[in-house]
Amino acid sequence: MTLLVVGSVALDSVFTPFGETADALGGSAVHFSVAASLLHPVRVVGVIGDDYPVAELERLSPRGIDWSGVQRVKGESFRWKGKYSYDLQSRETLETRLGVFADFRPVLAPAAAAAKFVFLGNIDPVLQLDVLDRVTAPMLVACDTMNYWIQSKRDVLMKLLQRVDLLMVNDSEARELSGDWNIHRAGRWILERGPKHVVIKQGEYGALLIEPGRSFHMPAYPLEEVFDPTGAGDAFAGGFMGYLARAQSVDTQHFRRAMVYGATMGSFSVSGFDVKGFEGLTTADVEERVRNFIDLTHIPAAERVT
Amino acid sequence: MTLLVVGSVALDSVFTPFGETADALGGSAVHFSVAASLLHPVRVVGVIGDDYPVAELERLSPRGIDWSGVQRVKGESFRWKGKYSYDLQSRETLETRLGVFADFRPVLAPAAAAAKFVFLGNIDPVLQLDVLDRVTAPMLVACDTMNYWIQSKRDVLMKLLQRVDLLMVNDSEARELSGDWNIHRAGRWILERGPKHVVIKQGEYGALLIEPGRSFHMPAYPLEEVFDPTGAGDAFAGGFMGYLARAQSVDTQHFRRAMVYGATMGSFSVSGFDVKGFEGLTTADVEERVRNFIDLTHIPAAERVT
Repeated sequence: MTLLVVGSVALDSVFTPFGETADALGGSAVHFSVAASLLHPVRVVGVIGDDYPVAELERLSPRGIDWSGVQRVKGESFRWKGKYSYDLQSRETLETRLGVFADFRPVLAPAAAAAKFVFLGNIDPVLQLDVLDRVTAPMLVACDTMNYWIQSKRDVLMKLLQRVDLLMVNDSEARELSGDWNIHRAGRWILERGPKHVVIKQGEYGALLIEPGRSFHMPAYPLEEVFDPTGAGDAFAGGFMGYLARAQSVDTQHFRRAMVYGATMGSFSVSGFDVKGFEGLTTADVEERVRNFIDLTHIPAAERVT
Repeated sequence: MTLLVVGSVALDSVFTPFGETADALGGSAVHFSVAASLLHPVRVVGVIGDDYPVAELERLSPRGIDWSGVQRVKGESFRWKGKYSYDLQSRETLETRLGVFADFRPVLAPAAAAAKFVFLGNIDPVLQLDVLDRVTAPMLVACDTMNYWIQSKRDVLMKLLQRVDLLMVNDSEARELSGDWNIHRAGRWILERGPKHVVIKQGEYGALLIEPGRSFHMPAYPLEEVFDPTGAGDAFAGGFMGYLARAQSVDTQHFRRAMVYGATMGSFSVSGFDVKGFEGLTTADVEERVRNFIDLTHIPAAERVT
């Protein structure tokens, strides 16, 4: 079953206390795909300029990433430059240059339009709706957004929410969208606007899966070394959607396991700059961390211990 | 097996966006005992002035709280006044009046000295060490501390750490104590100073249990309404220690379940002002929330779902 991601394919320059990158592979669609492809093949829809290091993308193709839906147009690729605080808890955007992304209009080949699992990365909700209009029979549509769209295109975003199955945002976005600082009320507020599932990412504190009448918390993997948080949320989404595409299921039990795969991919993502946290990684490595992860959240039954 | 807590018995005045209290029951030993006594009887060692509403303490005695170790001396009881931000994420201390607590010197009756489970609430580490010297054969000694002692009595605190089995602090305290912002490295730093277990409380994000070579994360119970965070950490400690005292065990498997009971008590604590979150609560209510809690962290096995 086809897994589709629509999002940015960017060049990131990131400064952290532990090092820096310049014009490195980045963007939501890239982070998503590198993670998801460890579990299931991915098709990417996006746009790059004629300055993009295409060879670096193609080097990733054998993992199971199909870049054929990435338009190559004249002009400069999307660039983002950011700097993290000493404890990686906050970041400052130093520069955003939209370049060819400013006029991006997603084009879906028939195979992409037939996708069963669709992730609408953080782009203009007008474009997200546009993609959604052209996907013919999805089993699961998930989307991300950010404060910028919440503020500038709230009406379109609310229309989009009515049509997606799952919203995946971070805690500050959930709070801003709902206008409620209590994260559980914020989640319920979102559920009442359309999605059947809400995933709220909380960085080093893990992530919440909120569904009508129940919720689930997944911690972050305990890491003593974190190098670059950029893209961790998209890697989480990639693990989450990649797992569901592989399982060919939107069963609620699978969603909880999808959270484990999401958190696992997030943990690999932050362990290296740009997409280096995934370098040399195999599906077996992923499964091993998933097992460790499940062990570290396991609560022994009372029968066994009292 | 006797469970002993040494800590403050105070009168708290708390302002939150949802209401306020004036001279209400508070202090680490009170919050601890009210929670712990739902699981196991508790002996309290502390001090109060002649202005303390003793009848309110005695009203709690039938729960299984033995206040006979609380000295009643001439003078004013310990008072704390604080105000929370609109989202309860931060608080400001408006006033601290030590009163009779300034000259507190714990006295242990033989039954208290024979305690098997000992919680040294957040008081001067000199006094914590003094109590420890007089406890004859404990199975488990846990202690709390705060930034004030980390800054002003670091040497004594480090001596204390060498002699306790478990340190239970919040994340900012763990960071300040270790000088490391990464919470997992901070935990390991503490483990290398003596304790075999470290519990790091993270408020609405739950709590971590860090042990040599492994760790465990317990989320906070999802609450849409939080009224007063005061004492939640001590209620957590009460649930944690009360469970272990009831289980008569310091087995590592029991520690994970103790985390569930701790988090459960924390969730009741924040649901009402002062100790009102525990009013009318039975052990059956606690066990029911524990079951719900375990359910909401449960990850279905792959076998069941793929």
